[in-house]
Amino acid sequence: MAEAVDLRVVGTTPVRPDGVDKVTGRAQFGADLNMPNMLHGRILRSPHAHARIKRVDLSKALAMQGVYAAVSGADFPMLASGEVSGEAGGDLADIARNVMARDKALYHGHAVAAVAATSLEVAEQALDAIEVDYEVLPPVLDVLEAMAADATLLDEQCFTKGLSETPDKPSNIAAMVKLARGDLEAGFAAADVVVEGEYRIPMAHQGYIEPHACTATVNEEGKATVWCCTQGHFDFRTMTAHILGCKIADLKFIASEIGGGFGGKTVVYLEPVAVMLSKKAGRPVKLVMTREEVFRATGPTSGSVVRVKVGARKDGRITAAKAWLAYEAGGLAGAPVGPGVMSIFAPYDLDNFLVEGYEVLVNKPKVAAYRAPGAPQSMHAMEVALDDIARQLDMDPLDLRLRNAADEGTQAPYGPKFPPIGFKACIEAAKKHPNYLAQVPEGAGRGVAAGFWFNIGMQSSAEVRINEDGSVVVMEGNPDIGGSRASMCLMAAETLGVPYEQVKTYVGDTESTGYCMVTGGSRTTFATGMAVVRACEDIIAECKARAAATWGVDKDQVEWQDGTAVPAPGVNADVNPLSLADLAASASATGGPILGKASLNAQGAGASFSINFADLKVDKETGAVEVLSYTAIQDAGKAIHPAYVEGQMQGGAAQGIGWALNEEYIYDQDGVMENAGFLDYRMPVASDLPMIDTEIVEVPNPSHPYGVRGVGETPIVAPLGVAANAVRDAIGIRINDLPMSPPRILAALDAA
Amino acid sequence: MAEAVDLRVVGTTPVRPDGVDKVTGRAQFGADLNMPNMLHGRILRSPHAHARIKRVDLSKALAMQGVYAAVSGADFPMLASGEVSGEAGGDLADIARNVMARDKALYHGHAVAAVAATSLEVAEQALDAIEVDYEVLPPVLDVLEAMAADATLLDEQCFTKGLSETPDKPSNIAAMVKLARGDLEAGFAAADVVVEGEYRIPMAHQGYIEPHACTATVNEEGKATVWCCTQGHFDFRTMTAHILGCKIADLKFIASEIGGGFGGKTVVYLEPVAVMLSKKAGRPVKLVMTREEVFRATGPTSGSVVRVKVGARKDGRITAAKAWLAYEAGGLAGAPVGPGVMSIFAPYDLDNFLVEGYEVLVNKPKVAAYRAPGAPQSMHAMEVALDDIARQLDMDPLDLRLRNAADEGTQAPYGPKFPPIGFKACIEAAKKHPNYLAQVPEGAGRGVAAGFWFNIGMQSSAEVRINEDGSVVVMEGNPDIGGSRASMCLMAAETLGVPYEQVKTYVGDTESTGYCMVTGGSRTTFATGMAVVRACEDIIAECKARAAATWGVDKDQVEWQDGTAVPAPGVNADVNPLSLADLAASASATGGPILGKASLNAQGAGASFSINFADLKVDKETGAVEVLSYTAIQDAGKAIHPAYVEGQMQGGAAQGIGWALNEEYIYDQDGVMENAGFLDYRMPVASDLPMIDTEIVEVPNPSHPYGVRGVGETPIVAPLGVAANAVRDAIGIRINDLPMSPPRILAALDAA
Repeated sequence: MAEAVDLRVVGTTPVRPDGVDKVTGRAQFGADLNMPNMLHGRILRSPHAHARIKRVDLSKALAMQGVYAAVSGADFPMLASGEVSGEAGGDLADIARNVMARDKALYHGHAVAAVAATSLEVAEQALDAIEVDYEVLPPVLDVLEAMAADATLLDEQCFTKGLSETPDKPSNIAAMVKLARGDLEAGFAAADVVVEGEYRIPMAHQGYIEPHACTATVNEEGKATVWCCTQGHFDFRTMTAHILGCKIADLKFIASEIGGGFGGKTVVYLEPVAVMLSKKAGRPVKLVMTREEVFRATGPTSGSVVRVKVGARKDGRITAAKAWLAYEAGGLAGAPVGPGVMSIFAPYDLDNFLVEGYEVLVNKPKVAAYRAPGAPQSMHAMEVALDDIARQLDMDPLDLRLRNAADEGTQAPYGPKFPPIGFKACIEAAKKHPNYLAQVPEGAGRGVAAGFWFNIGMQSSAEVRINEDGSVVVMEGNPDIGGSRASMCLMAAETLGVPYEQVKTYVGDTESTGYCMVTGGSRTTFATGMAVVRACEDIIAECKARAAATWGVDKDQVEWQDGTAVPAPGVNADVNPLSLADLAASASATGGPILGKASLNAQGAGASFSINFADLKVDKETGAVEVLSYTAIQDAGKAIHPAYVEGQMQGGAAQGIGWALNEEYIYDQDGVMENAGFLDYRMPVASDLPMIDTEIVEVPNPSHPYGVRGVGETPIVAPLGVAANAVRDAIGIRINDLPMSPPRILAALDAA
Repeated sequence: MAEAVDLRVVGTTPVRPDGVDKVTGRAQFGADLNMPNMLHGRILRSPHAHARIKRVDLSKALAMQGVYAAVSGADFPMLASGEVSGEAGGDLADIARNVMARDKALYHGHAVAAVAATSLEVAEQALDAIEVDYEVLPPVLDVLEAMAADATLLDEQCFTKGLSETPDKPSNIAAMVKLARGDLEAGFAAADVVVEGEYRIPMAHQGYIEPHACTATVNEEGKATVWCCTQGHFDFRTMTAHILGCKIADLKFIASEIGGGFGGKTVVYLEPVAVMLSKKAGRPVKLVMTREEVFRATGPTSGSVVRVKVGARKDGRITAAKAWLAYEAGGLAGAPVGPGVMSIFAPYDLDNFLVEGYEVLVNKPKVAAYRAPGAPQSMHAMEVALDDIARQLDMDPLDLRLRNAADEGTQAPYGPKFPPIGFKACIEAAKKHPNYLAQVPEGAGRGVAAGFWFNIGMQSSAEVRINEDGSVVVMEGNPDIGGSRASMCLMAAETLGVPYEQVKTYVGDTESTGYCMVTGGSRTTFATGMAVVRACEDIIAECKARAAATWGVDKDQVEWQDGTAVPAPGVNADVNPLSLADLAASASATGGPILGKASLNAQGAGASFSINFADLKVDKETGAVEVLSYTAIQDAGKAIHPAYVEGQMQGGAAQGIGWALNEEYIYDQDGVMENAGFLDYRMPVASDLPMIDTEIVEVPNPSHPYGVRGVGETPIVAPLGVAANAVRDAIGIRINDLPMSPPRILAALDAA
């Protein structure tokens, strides 16, 4: 890794390159592409949370004036479960059945058919003309009831995965994940204090501003171009190809600008339907979800029930920890129970633990990734339990965590030993933070919690080209959801030794650049950034070779310094240094255009830890919570563009606070979501929150040339525990379940 | 070069990849992009062929409802002549003054101002509201008069370039080019027969179907995106940046599909104006030329006067040749007199010659490239002179040419010795061709002539990527004007050892791929093709390394055979061969996505020669010529996609016949073109021509991996001489000037 002292450009905060187009309305989002002769599509959605689909008759819709195409599940090939697994998106058979129901509607809002017509109005009328015969089944809505032996089954072919042997009868439990170490019984026996609790959190949505949207056009050869908002157009291409049974090379995916994703735009909903409709219609087809559809039919994160038992000695050392997780998958498998199990104890160095997690089918939307998927739910329980221990031991909650904190060399609960990590550094930064040193305001409470995310690497590509004037083009394939164009420019400028302004980064479509896995897992700045750095190194090698040829010296007699080829020390060459611009201007004479490339499957993503704390007040009349201050401290490895890192920390805190205090999917007894709109699904707005204070800790990741760790997901993890612990501190009552909305707080106060 | 016998894919004729979109109307041409809030631009053009511009007042136009921007020459920076020379487009100061007149209007139709408004109608009204004060000057229309010492000057700063010393006073002669060898006097003294003539050809237009069109949009930071029909969007970007004085990185150029160019779309007309208008208006601006504007204000090829004198011995051996060329540049320099001088004697092995060429300013449109620019005019004269010699010597015209034909080792008139070339092979193929062996039909005449073009290499880039299923993406930057996507696919498939269908080639925009010089000079299949081949070799090297890592062997123990990595002979490895698809499927585990790239400045383009002959009849009542049969024989080096090569030969023959028989710019005494439309500018249509018979000769170019020579330009050269010589044969009268339109033929018949 480059020494921090050497960095000229990395770590500065230039104006964001996409800013002007976004504030002037020029940026093109998913719904912004219109094409000549374009049709408008609409999707017919199940009015039942659980029903067998006996018959879908499209004929009356197809007969209508202005209707050009209609499709139902019968138009899509069947994929066998487990047959194909997209690296990013999960089991493609499940995704396919989620995109368009086949034999069963598995949640209220599940897509059952779709039409394309000359206007939205005609399309809506055509939906009314589609005849569907349903055999309505009882909905399974509660995760614990769903796990019962006599529960109504969503899928007769669901045999729990992950058990030592395949069970002999189907259930709603799609999978089990287990991790254990040491002697749990002995651990609890050695404890001076043991706390235990059950914690429930309902489904919550990512709440991105931009609804899903795409426009697809298919030509007479079956070649499709799809414009859509996505976190990963390459993976969308893969999913769509498999779901439609067509060739990858027949699909071109172009990523629009994206108005938020947070994991929710890593999986296809509309795109295969739009392609199929366009193919049948022979015209472009646009599909745009309403906000209501986003709530009812895209993937929120799992609702969960988590049980935790933790024992500790008087000195705060944890002796044993046990957890049991049940995560709602929704109507089709795909819940993040794995990461929930892996992360719950990850910040701590534990000798004895056991954690079991269950993924459970319920008649709710198929869940999708949501920032650090699975970690907030499980870690909320652990961080609350630790808060209870600290109270019982009368220990500072930061000291309790420091006493047990994982560090370099600690064996993570999920196996490997940690390389250098920044958890202790975050705790120590929190202890010294003015906000922590300040008194808790009168009548308020303070809460502390830790956050964690693994971060991932995976496959990325980058291409770098030098224009004839020495300006630099970086092309890569990750939609920019959190400033990656800026960070790629910074890393490229740093590596090449040129000013930031000399570099522009573009996000290519699936034909214009090499494969990059989805923007998610907090992988982009790490993995794609590494590809950009390597592609720049390729450029430097080429430049050194060009300079050597120009000077008539050997290429190892040339060095690259500050964006300029110079003779190596001791080389006796009477030559002028050649800048990138000089080399670009003479490229025609030295071998043609200067190009660089790199691809990789990045390893060593580097776990990211955080400590958050907040002061808040509870209005005991209304049950409303006012967050007075919030401080997020997080190890970024190295912050390439610190303002964006702070933005991630602030945004994650805001989402986590919303989830902790207000957000939830509310269902009626028939499985119909009752609050499918932003008026009733209560996300925090600016006036609900104080300024989120941030402190970036930098413990460099040795696996990245500039020390990067992913920063996008860890920020959402701690706020749930922070809020729970602060409310406990403020009102003296432990509320185990989220959200701590006014009715729940009032009920708790009333009960006390 | 690969042995022809080994080729599996190169030389086959798969269906063109762009065919379906073109025949179904899906292909997007220059005028097909519309954007929200887009304005329509129109250009005010000089009503005078020669005038000083005293004042341009845009204020009344700008005050009109619906007018968003107006510009004139004052809005564009001044460039000093010779300051910047675009590699492809010539002197940028001249191009800039052609795009928008500054102090002078130099031809009727010269752009003087431009507006952008909400509709074309409003824009037209706004043009009427622009006030321009002209001081009308006498137009200089005849090339010989323009050369006179007392001629009115177009440019007071024009001092002839290319003379041994700069002249002390300005003239209309922009440049002189001269080539000489041997002892001309002795050569003519040794001749048994000497012929001499003066040959005039008026300006002719490329006649592409698609008028110039572009849409530009500029954001508030000054970053512009330009969609346009062009033969080279990278060079358009360079020209536009220089003309506007902006940074290259601030411009993104996207090439639309192109409806013909033939050299005429290698230079900007509308693009800098559209960008400037959009910048001022803050909205997208579309500019589309009318056909009339295309004729009056884009670049036809030079009108010319060529004088030739050739001496030969009785055995046909040429003893001396002398030529004098005067080429019209139009109102600004840029005539192709250099290639005219260089090509006139290129097919022949001459000991004694002198050729001088002059580039002359006249008040007509600034000329642009037109297929083998400059060669048809000069070679027409030489081929006619040779025909006259053959008649005087009673020699077969093919035998006369064979007697003097250049061959491998012959020193070309312009310097280098020819590597292997195919001129003799073409002549010999002609002598054996059934059409040549057939009797000339009763009452018809037959003409023979040779064609030649240098072909160029220059800079190109290519990127190749392997999709996860093993399908291959080739990305390069040359607009496909003659089937280059197909030829790139063929060469990539051949090199990689995979089926043609597994490869798709895309033309990237200026951000999506590396620099490729303009599609012209017959360079694309040669130079960009070579880059594609090298990028595929890069892929193969990577695949061998991946296979070696997979098998645990050294990478030089792996060979690439038929698209598959196999252990080298003698390597004792019990492994299964790995196909490209296998390697792609495992790429994640072996280092990430598989990418290849190459860039080059291609050398050794390889001259291309042709022999054409035709039989035609002249209707002595009407003067109309009926072409009965036409045979084009040409050396392609190696025809990558033979059907496209034949198409180039047929298209060039059709254009050359049109030029020889009917096409011409007709001017009145004020310098106003009188036939600026397809009703009056008479291009041949299908019913005017017989099927053009073709024979491809293949003398491989040793500088290209598959032996390619450019094929796109040579085809237009021979038809002028063929037609002239056939008419001479048919009517017994030599008509020196073109076109041999009915009036000219009738006049010649009358005079005889």
